[in-house]
Amino acid sequence: MVTIKDSVHDHIDVKGVAEALLETPPVQRLRRIRQLGTVQLVYPAANHTRFEHSLGVLHLADRALEHLSVAGPQAERVRAAALLHDIGHSPYSHNTEAVVQRHTGRAHDDVGPLITEGAVARVLTAHDLDPDSVAGLVRGEGELGQLVSGELDVDRMDYLVRDAHHTGVPYGTIDQARLVRELALVDGELALDEGNVQTAESLLLARALMNPTVYNHHAARVGKAMLRRGAERLLETGVAPERLRRMDDWDFHVALREADSTAAIAHRLDRRDLFKRAVWAELADVPEDVLGADYHELRNIEGEIADHAGVDPDAVILDVPGEPRMTESTTKVVVNGEARRLDRQSALVDALRTAQREQWRMGVYCPEEHTGTVGPAAETVLGLELDALVTDVRRRLHTRLDDF
Amino acid sequence: MVTIKDSVHDHIDVKGVAEALLETPPVQRLRRIRQLGTVQLVYPAANHTRFEHSLGVLHLADRALEHLSVAGPQAERVRAAALLHDIGHSPYSHNTEAVVQRHTGRAHDDVGPLITEGAVARVLTAHDLDPDSVAGLVRGEGELGQLVSGELDVDRMDYLVRDAHHTGVPYGTIDQARLVRELALVDGELALDEGNVQTAESLLLARALMNPTVYNHHAARVGKAMLRRGAERLLETGVAPERLRRMDDWDFHVALREADSTAAIAHRLDRRDLFKRAVWAELADVPEDVLGADYHELRNIEGEIADHAGVDPDAVILDVPGEPRMTESTTKVVVNGEARRLDRQSALVDALRTAQREQWRMGVYCPEEHTGTVGPAAETVLGLELDALVTDVRRRLHTRLDDF
Amino acid sequence: MVTIKDSVHDHIDVKGVAEALLETPPVQRLRRIRQLGTVQLVYPAANHTRFEHSLGVLHLADRALEHLSVAGPQAERVRAAALLHDIGHSPYSHNTEAVVQRHTGRAHDDVGPLITEGAVARVLTAHDLDPDSVAGLVRGEGELGQLVSGELDVDRMDYLVRDAHHTGVPYGTIDQARLVRELALVDGELALDEGNVQTAESLLLARALMNPTVYNHHAARVGKAMLRRGAERLLETGVAPERLRRMDDWDFHVALREADSTAAIAHRLDRRDLFKRAVWAELADVPEDVLGADYHELRNIEGEIADHAGVDPDAVILDVPGEPRMTESTTKVVVNGEARRLDRQSALVDALRTAQREQWRMGVYCPEEHTGTVGPAAETVLGLELDALVTDVRRRLHTRLDDF
Amino acid sequence: MVTIKDSVHDHIDVKGVAEALLETPPVQRLRRIRQLGTVQLVYPAANHTRFEHSLGVLHLADRALEHLSVAGPQAERVRAAALLHDIGHSPYSHNTEAVVQRHTGRAHDDVGPLITEGAVARVLTAHDLDPDSVAGLVRGEGELGQLVSGELDVDRMDYLVRDAHHTGVPYGTIDQARLVRELALVDGELALDEGNVQTAESLLLARALMNPTVYNHHAARVGKAMLRRGAERLLETGVAPERLRRMDDWDFHVALREADSTAAIAHRLDRRDLFKRAVWAELADVPEDVLGADYHELRNIEGEIADHAGVDPDAVILDVPGEPRMTESTTKVVVNGEARRLDRQSALVDALRTAQREQWRMGVYCPEEHTGTVGPAAETVLGLELDALVTDVRRRLHTRLDDF
Repeated sequence: MVTIKDSVHDHIDVKGVAEALLETPPVQRLRRIRQLGTVQLVYPAANHTRFEHSLGVLHLADRALEHLSVAGPQAERVRAAALLHDIGHSPYSHNTEAVVQRHTGRAHDDVGPLITEGAVARVLTAHDLDPDSVAGLVRGEGELGQLVSGELDVDRMDYLVRDAHHTGVPYGTIDQARLVRELALVDGELALDEGNVQTAESLLLARALMNPTVYNHHAARVGKAMLRRGAERLLETGVAPERLRRMDDWDFHVALREADSTAAIAHRLDRRDLFKRAVWAELADVPEDVLGADYHELRNIEGEIADHAGVDPDAVILDVPGEPRMTESTTKVVVNGEARRLDRQSALVDALRTAQREQWRMGVYCPEEHTGTVGPAAETVLGLELDALVTDVRRRLHTRLDDF
Repeated sequence: MVTIKDSVHDHIDVKGVAEALLETPPVQRLRRIRQLGTVQLVYPAANHTRFEHSLGVLHLADRALEHLSVAGPQAERVRAAALLHDIGHSPYSHNTEAVVQRHTGRAHDDVGPLITEGAVARVLTAHDLDPDSVAGLVRGEGELGQLVSGELDVDRMDYLVRDAHHTGVPYGTIDQARLVRELALVDGELALDEGNVQTAESLLLARALMNPTVYNHHAARVGKAMLRRGAERLLETGVAPERLRRMDDWDFHVALREADSTAAIAHRLDRRDLFKRAVWAELADVPEDVLGADYHELRNIEGEIADHAGVDPDAVILDVPGEPRMTESTTKVVVNGEARRLDRQSALVDALRTAQREQWRMGVYCPEEHTGTVGPAAETVLGLELDALVTDVRRRLHTRLDDF
Repeated sequence: MVTIKDSVHDHIDVKGVAEALLETPPVQRLRRIRQLGTVQLVYPAANHTRFEHSLGVLHLADRALEHLSVAGPQAERVRAAALLHDIGHSPYSHNTEAVVQRHTGRAHDDVGPLITEGAVARVLTAHDLDPDSVAGLVRGEGELGQLVSGELDVDRMDYLVRDAHHTGVPYGTIDQARLVRELALVDGELALDEGNVQTAESLLLARALMNPTVYNHHAARVGKAMLRRGAERLLETGVAPERLRRMDDWDFHVALREADSTAAIAHRLDRRDLFKRAVWAELADVPEDVLGADYHELRNIEGEIADHAGVDPDAVILDVPGEPRMTESTTKVVVNGEARRLDRQSALVDALRTAQREQWRMGVYCPEEHTGTVGPAAETVLGLELDALVTDVRRRLHTRLDDF
Repeated sequence: MVTIKDSVHDHIDVKGVAEALLETPPVQRLRRIRQLGTVQLVYPAANHTRFEHSLGVLHLADRALEHLSVAGPQAERVRAAALLHDIGHSPYSHNTEAVVQRHTGRAHDDVGPLITEGAVARVLTAHDLDPDSVAGLVRGEGELGQLVSGELDVDRMDYLVRDAHHTGVPYGTIDQARLVRELALVDGELALDEGNVQTAESLLLARALMNPTVYNHHAARVGKAMLRRGAERLLETGVAPERLRRMDDWDFHVALREADSTAAIAHRLDRRDLFKRAVWAELADVPEDVLGADYHELRNIEGEIADHAGVDPDAVILDVPGEPRMTESTTKVVVNGEARRLDRQSALVDALRTAQREQWRMGVYCPEEHTGTVGPAAETVLGLELDALVTDVRRRLHTRLDDF
């Protein structure tokens, strides 16, 4: 057994299959994948990695299994899945995930070959665990898969607290120990035990507070959009998508610096000389066809905006997030003996869903010197009917604490 | 200047009028008034006092005044009010407040004579401050009075964090420093500056999480109801209401032990041998006339229940809380240049209001051995139409973590 | 099993004999005994009690037993002793211990009858545990008694961290989890396992930092001396020593207020109107006969000083602490396979012992207005040869942060 | 003014020249220089960077200047120096410093051209500050230079706390706020004010606890030795020393991966497949000529050891640290009105110096499979007279918590 000191959980014990997996390259690589990608541009202390997070997930899984009285090979399988759940992340975590998925067809939790082949598979097999079933747990399959990936997974319980700890924001604070103690399996569903509607709500609220403050902070989003652009350009230079996927943050960033078509983006990121928001529009103001546009249509719109504004096509980025989701809303809680969905029990869910839709923003970003031309051009091309004053006020709102 | 080490704010500087007030008996008495009264019966570490809280409020007021660019005598007045804002508390803080108010006509923030006479008045006058105006600030009067008592007061900002710190609960965590920095005075109203709707919501959410977990925990409520009963009995023995009001926790508790009519209550509290819930009813199940009953009517109902159950009248306590309020809902936030009420801007306010009403409970408490007879008797007398099963399930729900 | 939320250890599980003991009056009484007595006069947030500390000790004992692979009745006995280890404390913890011991012959860990008779004995017997052997563990007897009371006891591990947490001082921080994991029983001795000389030193250093800053802060010492005087006077009024011993802080303090001979002391403590230091002398400056004087001789010296200064005898308190001890210096650490005493392995022990002797101070305290006469009188009567300037400088040194 | 959220100091205000400097490339580069280099191999959460540390130093400098009543251009100069003090660091901070210094003649605080030329110089000049004088402050010159670099510098105050926070170790905890408040300038010397001998000692103790646990942890040292070797090899491939100096961690690490002569080292570091200790010798056991050997002599010894053991020269690393220093020992503290050196006032200094010498270790590292041959070979070549048993025991000691 090794014991690792963690800034969130203090001492984490790693033993059995987890100890052996710790030394495999796909797990060690996570030391070089930042948990929050470009959020570090806003919160300078947010440099924590997927490696320490994965250890935290292992730790909470271990606690949960103990409370659920799951032991033996079944528990070993879950511990393996907990430690491995993030090995499919591309560099800068979620920041490049969409690009990678479009080109490789693989999301970050589609870890198949990474688990079923190579060093990881060898370790699992040596511990009499079936690699395919571990990969299934990572995808959230089966009763215990929900513990690794689901509304009540220990992944969420770790990252909310860890991300709050490292950004310095007081908002992700949930009662981890209580959550883990109150887990129950009811008719094959992972649920919080009787008397925990408020415990479930607290998870939802932590999320609702972290989203606008940290995860969707506009400067982090601009950085992410620039990285995404960089990843696309890099693939155009001939880098294989699967190779990009297996880079770590360092490889990827240095590759951006070295390719002609991405050097300018890397240079900007290195100096935190970010694009600025030319447009920042609410959900209600964005036409349906823009919301429904696919990747290539969006790139065409970018081109049109640049053309209309008379700037280089590279100077415009259009950032249209997907529909807001709220996974936590379907959390199960036992009420009067039966497992019910939280959104059936709590008036908060709808309110938070509304809040989330209100916080949704589409952005058009460009170099600071072009906002005056790109803004109006984008409004025209996109068919936004924004009161000019409002646009201006919205921009002004964010120039204080938030704008670093 | 003295510098005091605090477990929440680290170093607190106390100077000027605040330093002189620190030594007055009404302020020193706060060292012996626990901040959370009977919450300590649930969270053993919640032994913090109104004294340290008052220093914390002084500290935040000081910070806020700096950001609002208020200085000179006006600032000194606010600092004085911040340090003095809780000197009107009766023993066990809010736990005996209703009793004291019924008999003396004074709520805890009705601090008139405590400020305008005696040692405090002498200190204020010596610092050229008008005691009446300081008393006004404590009542929340005037522009800067809102900083001491209002939706955005520094009182709230201190206690949410302090109460979370001392209970060990991760829920009261707000970004104090940001809240204080973002305060603005707009047309005579204290508001959060542009871009802070979510900051205001975070205050509301912290409150929503603390209410059921800490402030209204059922065991704390039972303890409080027992203390209230004790206070009433003590007044019947001839203790003057004004004397009761000026006792500290220690005086009061020892007095309960020593009077014949209250010794049994004190004995129970000393051993944490609390009454148990015979009924725990939701707002919708409680008839209007019970909700609207005054103090004497409620006492009569208690008598009827005891009679019906065939137990001693002292064995039944009826606990009907007032309508849930949500002061924070009227917080002002600047949006597009004007100060608006938060409940006009945020869908969360209504949801939290609903949640609060759903969490409201009326309780009938009695010694454990009588719950079987008092429960049905109370349902009959109160005209509750509870499905027996439901009553039973509800009781059962709370027998785990919560019930310590 | 009950689970209790703690501000230091988060969730503490209490089960078996500990759960049953929790409800006994001697354990519940600890809710009303402050851990640090008069330290609260210096650090206003230091209001934590022996109750929460005892729960913390139980928690760490539980962890240690698990790492030492001790289970069954032997473990239950240790858990019982851990929870009960402080029930012998008189009011204000160590502040009145000397007085009580002089009159009753019992130190705080001499818990015999409290454990072997009454409710506690009944619970232990019902759980098939021998009360005498539990009382023995509390006194530190036997192999596992060292875990409850010894150089490496979990008592120390809890209070260093808890006292730091509640005072806000950053100095008592030790790696509790590591200490507990590294315990080993070697030839019947509790020791830290191989490779932990520095871990043992860290315990010593935490203690060395807490002593002058918290435990021996001069203002806390003045308060303690006043309380001790009050306790002596109270006994003279006819209060039985055994009754005094079983009071809680509240009884005791209210009793001080009510007796004629102690009302003045209580009044001063209530207002934090403490005696001041008229003399504050180093160990080297104090004559041997003063250091070796017994209780009655010291009282006679006080009388002489008062006489010499022309003040009331009640106005002078002489405070001569015992020789500095350093229990932690004999901590055992395994080095090359054998358990060695820390002071044989670490150059720090001697240095800290020297530092401790240098920090030792004898004090003569009196009301502020008499320091000018009592100081010189004390120097004459005690035969101190202090350079007047030095005395003055020493006094002046402590008028800043420390003097609150 | 921008306000940045920090995980240690909460909100940090950056304004004036510091705000303008923030955007310069040399400061932004610090985002990609880890504070603790290879310590991350032992404490996975230690991913914090020189950037956030530099902001922390700026913050503490600001506080200190306020307490010292230094304002105007003099204060701006110090703030600039505080933010810039680490821009001279080579990749992996101290891990490559010796190599870089040998080849460029520049230590990390020799920041001359980085400050006197380019973007930084332009900003300073635009704020009417002389770049040369700012560079002087970074080197610790002049009265206020001691605040940036000296025994009582704010650099130390920030990193002790920050490194503890991010490793999760409870040992670096000092009372920052008190240290900063108690600073005084006495006859041109920066000192802690009267009454702070223990405050100064606490700084020393924090350091003494962090050294063995974090800064000199053996696995971090092995990683550092491997990086140093990598840097030397990279320079041999023709990379210019000045270019190496200005790389960030990412450039450097990717360069190691790409050069033939360093790919193996990078591969090992990427997988945390570290060399192991073949010898780990105490100061007393190491011959004088080895302690005094220069760089080339040490490399020759490495070759001899490899030759003797019959392994490839690349398989042996000899790691001989310099003599232990203890900068904090000369901290000045005001005692009886004069600034004295701490080592004249405190018995602890000598004890800690002794402890530090006892903790000193020379290491010989090699791949795990060669320890059996390299160990004895090294003992012969180096002339170590170690009892074989002791060597073995020493190795075994560290296989538990520490060895991750």
